[in-house]
Amino acid sequence: MKSVTIGELARALDARLWGDASLCVTGAAEPAAAGPASDGGGIIAMAMAPRYAEALQPGSMAILAEGMDPEAYGLKAAIFAPRPRLMMAGLTRAFDAGPDIAPGIHPTAIIDPSAVIGEGAAIGPFVVIGARVRIGAGARIGPHVSIGRDSALGREALIHAGARIAHGVSAGDRLILQPGASVGGDGFSFVTPEESGIEEIRRTLGAREAIRQQHWTRIHSLGGVEIGDDVEIGANATVDRGTIRATRIGAGTKIDNLVQVGHNVTVGRDCLLCGLVGIAGSSRIGDRVVLAGQVGVSDNIEIGDDVIAGGATKIFSRVPSGRVILGNPAVRMETQMEIQKAMRRLPRFAQQLSKLQETVTRLLEKG
Amino acid sequence: MKSVTIGELARALDARLWGDASLCVTGAAEPAAAGPASDGGGIIAMAMAPRYAEALQPGSMAILAEGMDPEAYGLKAAIFAPRPRLMMAGLTRAFDAGPDIAPGIHPTAIIDPSAVIGEGAAIGPFVVIGARVRIGAGARIGPHVSIGRDSALGREALIHAGARIAHGVSAGDRLILQPGASVGGDGFSFVTPEESGIEEIRRTLGAREAIRQQHWTRIHSLGGVEIGDDVEIGANATVDRGTIRATRIGAGTKIDNLVQVGHNVTVGRDCLLCGLVGIAGSSRIGDRVVLAGQVGVSDNIEIGDDVIAGGATKIFSRVPSGRVILGNPAVRMETQMEIQKAMRRLPRFAQQLSKLQETVTRLLEKG
Amino acid sequence: MKSVTIGELARALDARLWGDASLCVTGAAEPAAAGPASDGGGIIAMAMAPRYAEALQPGSMAILAEGMDPEAYGLKAAIFAPRPRLMMAGLTRAFDAGPDIAPGIHPTAIIDPSAVIGEGAAIGPFVVIGARVRIGAGARIGPHVSIGRDSALGREALIHAGARIAHGVSAGDRLILQPGASVGGDGFSFVTPEESGIEEIRRTLGAREAIRQQHWTRIHSLGGVEIGDDVEIGANATVDRGTIRATRIGAGTKIDNLVQVGHNVTVGRDCLLCGLVGIAGSSRIGDRVVLAGQVGVSDNIEIGDDVIAGGATKIFSRVPSGRVILGNPAVRMETQMEIQKAMRRLPRFAQQLSKLQETVTRLLEKG
Repeated sequence: MKSVTIGELARALDARLWGDASLCVTGAAEPAAAGPASDGGGIIAMAMAPRYAEALQPGSMAILAEGMDPEAYGLKAAIFAPRPRLMMAGLTRAFDAGPDIAPGIHPTAIIDPSAVIGEGAAIGPFVVIGARVRIGAGARIGPHVSIGRDSALGREALIHAGARIAHGVSAGDRLILQPGASVGGDGFSFVTPEESGIEEIRRTLGAREAIRQQHWTRIHSLGGVEIGDDVEIGANATVDRGTIRATRIGAGTKIDNLVQVGHNVTVGRDCLLCGLVGIAGSSRIGDRVVLAGQVGVSDNIEIGDDVIAGGATKIFSRVPSGRVILGNPAVRMETQMEIQKAMRRLPRFAQQLSKLQETVTRLLEKG
Repeated sequence: MKSVTIGELARALDARLWGDASLCVTGAAEPAAAGPASDGGGIIAMAMAPRYAEALQPGSMAILAEGMDPEAYGLKAAIFAPRPRLMMAGLTRAFDAGPDIAPGIHPTAIIDPSAVIGEGAAIGPFVVIGARVRIGAGARIGPHVSIGRDSALGREALIHAGARIAHGVSAGDRLILQPGASVGGDGFSFVTPEESGIEEIRRTLGAREAIRQQHWTRIHSLGGVEIGDDVEIGANATVDRGTIRATRIGAGTKIDNLVQVGHNVTVGRDCLLCGLVGIAGSSRIGDRVVLAGQVGVSDNIEIGDDVIAGGATKIFSRVPSGRVILGNPAVRMETQMEIQKAMRRLPRFAQQLSKLQETVTRLLEKG
Repeated sequence: MKSVTIGELARALDARLWGDASLCVTGAAEPAAAGPASDGGGIIAMAMAPRYAEALQPGSMAILAEGMDPEAYGLKAAIFAPRPRLMMAGLTRAFDAGPDIAPGIHPTAIIDPSAVIGEGAAIGPFVVIGARVRIGAGARIGPHVSIGRDSALGREALIHAGARIAHGVSAGDRLILQPGASVGGDGFSFVTPEESGIEEIRRTLGAREAIRQQHWTRIHSLGGVEIGDDVEIGANATVDRGTIRATRIGAGTKIDNLVQVGHNVTVGRDCLLCGLVGIAGSSRIGDRVVLAGQVGVSDNIEIGDDVIAGGATKIFSRVPSGRVILGNPAVRMETQMEIQKAMRRLPRFAQQLSKLQETVTRLLEKG
């Protein structure tokens, strides 16, 4: 575990310090788990809202929201957090030791002689690295990782245990792959010699004339995957290679666990794709798009910049830039809210409508 | 394959036996696949409802429901199952040889000298175990598994091939991880220096004033994962580590394949989370909760005890204990059933409404 | 990279050639990435519709749609594609070198002496193969793959890095497993000694009398998995083993990334299961069924032949053969389209209905 003084920590976080700047901080925890600081220092409590203050222990160190009073809590020292979650980023980074990957190349790793490994790289046990692979300086590669021929990673990659990088994948600096992530598997792309049932219903909007035998012939994936700087891909997530050009993930984009990005897809910069999102082949996602958990995107769809899709939104057609959408099928969030309200009242509508029909019938009879 | 007499099996299952108690049982199968018992014994047929009886072969052994007549089927022996699925549990356990992991530690396994491995543990080829890891007695750990520093597993863990346990994960006794399961990957937690689009729409309920550039800064995950006794986690499922405290999975909870449990989530005891369920960060799930396949739970949601959510239910807000819910967004199951009925009649409503409008207009004109 | 003359390529694709048959083709790419052919040949441009023609460079080779004029684009040679996507299949196959797995058995692979490895098989580093496994001729098995006892693969299997095959799995010829796919993990099958909450609500259609403690007892999976010829299973997808008989995947069926196929499921021939599809235990899927991304199928459901389900369809009950379905819950696609149209107009209906009620009330008062 790294250790710094709380004074150094405040400077690193560019934040205001109160109290004894010389105390050592060895980690961060919830207030209940952070006891009083001893001579050797201690754990700093994260109490960035008044509701967390109750569990603070006298004599401890804490991160507080502006306006909270460290003296009232009997603290020895405190750092003030003007934007708590941002503070959290700096603080957790300071104390994250990450996975243990010993410096240097583990003797069991199998590295093709034509591969070029950057300075200071740490490569774990049972790693397999193919021909002409280039790994940038400062990379950390966990156990059981495989990297196929002609792939290239930039500086300071962090590839967790069991992640899979196929051949012909290139990535910028600071790529993070969580355990079991797969980049560069083959696209899911098949064709039938005759028109298939899917092609038919897309043409006829749902009608089928005759049902025929159909066998699927495989379209192979010759394209690779191109990934910008500062991309992170979650545990067991999958990004498929392109057909004849690369699948692309823009710089700064973060992909959560169990997300599927299909072949030929282009994802822009600084996007967030949350858990279990699926993006079908050849769709194009703009910059700064946020897709919440379990969102689905059809194939060959275009989603503009700055779109935000709420949880489980299903997107079947083009979405203009800046739109906030929700629902299956996706509509503007405010429209969806109205639809949902109306849907809950739907059984009542049905009753009202049938009662009204009766009334009008009686009126007609009377008339 | 283990082998027992049908008499021993009946005693082990605490069930009533009929016929020759000395016959050997070497396995269990569907009636059509279980032939007559020979001198050496044979496969026992699972025929726990009258509809399965037709395929029973004379001279065979069978598990029957109460009330079925073994003599009429010409059986040599039979065990009666008062609660068939429970019987199934005992029977399949009796014959499950599980994966082959040779006793002892495979010479290719790389185990940190500071790790403590319990008595009778079987550790397969190419396993990597980090510093200070503790593995309880009787553990079976398949090939290509990695376990990070300071993690601890209780007694009789069964960790299948390629499962990933990161650092700082603790589990109780009898943990089962199916192939490729990942426990302790980093949480998906990011912050922008300024208010992000997501924060803005949560504040404004969907409206966006101005769209700004935004880069995501990573919040690191210092917390681990804490898992109770008797937990099972499915193939390629993912459970993320917490931010500053542990993600928690209660004792007796079973998690299916491809489920995502986000950072800081707390899942109670004896829950079932079925395939492709996603639970976003910091949500709290009570005890004995059942989430059917593809259910989604938003972040920071509380779900009470004994909630049952039907397939593909999407949960965006608090659910009180004991509720049975369905739909997107989740409502009580009976309400959802009414909504669905009304929805199917919706196109007809539209027609009726417009016809009624015409009629009323005519009435008004007449009046 | 393989290299052929464009004349040979046209013959292999059974397609019409125009121009210089002797030029060498070393790969295929989008028009912008395919420069003019040099003496040594070059990359062939995929321009199978007029809209791609703009980026064609004079002096290059191309695949064109019938009716396009190679002379007008200044090409050196061209192949005509009557059905472009089918042409794509042949062309990409011709140039797909696939993963690098050196011929023969890598010295680090651990293969049980009782396993039988077919002629010409290539087995990569750190592979683990159990007792009595049979691998057909021409198999290619990537790094970190594990195959459990008594499993059998046909000819020309291609098993990518880190895929997991448990014990008792059998597959026909030409099986492809993408990275991290898991075949033969245990089914998700549990029972409570007393009636569980799920059983109760299935019996009562949603009502719960009393809530009881419930612990889950495991039903073990003794069945294996049986897979036909020409099956492909995507990255990190999971197919569970059956309880007392095998889970079955029919010949020619293609399964995309992150798909979950539960225990005892039967999938027919020539099906497509797209990304993030989930099929719960014991359901039966017919032949030539297409389930688009994120479709869910409840347990114990029967889906007939030739069914097509659109993206994110949730299937809770039997679907007859040939039906095209959409929505949650699934209905005929045309019905769903009407429902969606009506839903978007629902807030307006509500207004119209309440206005009509007022009018009729006034009419009644007048009357």
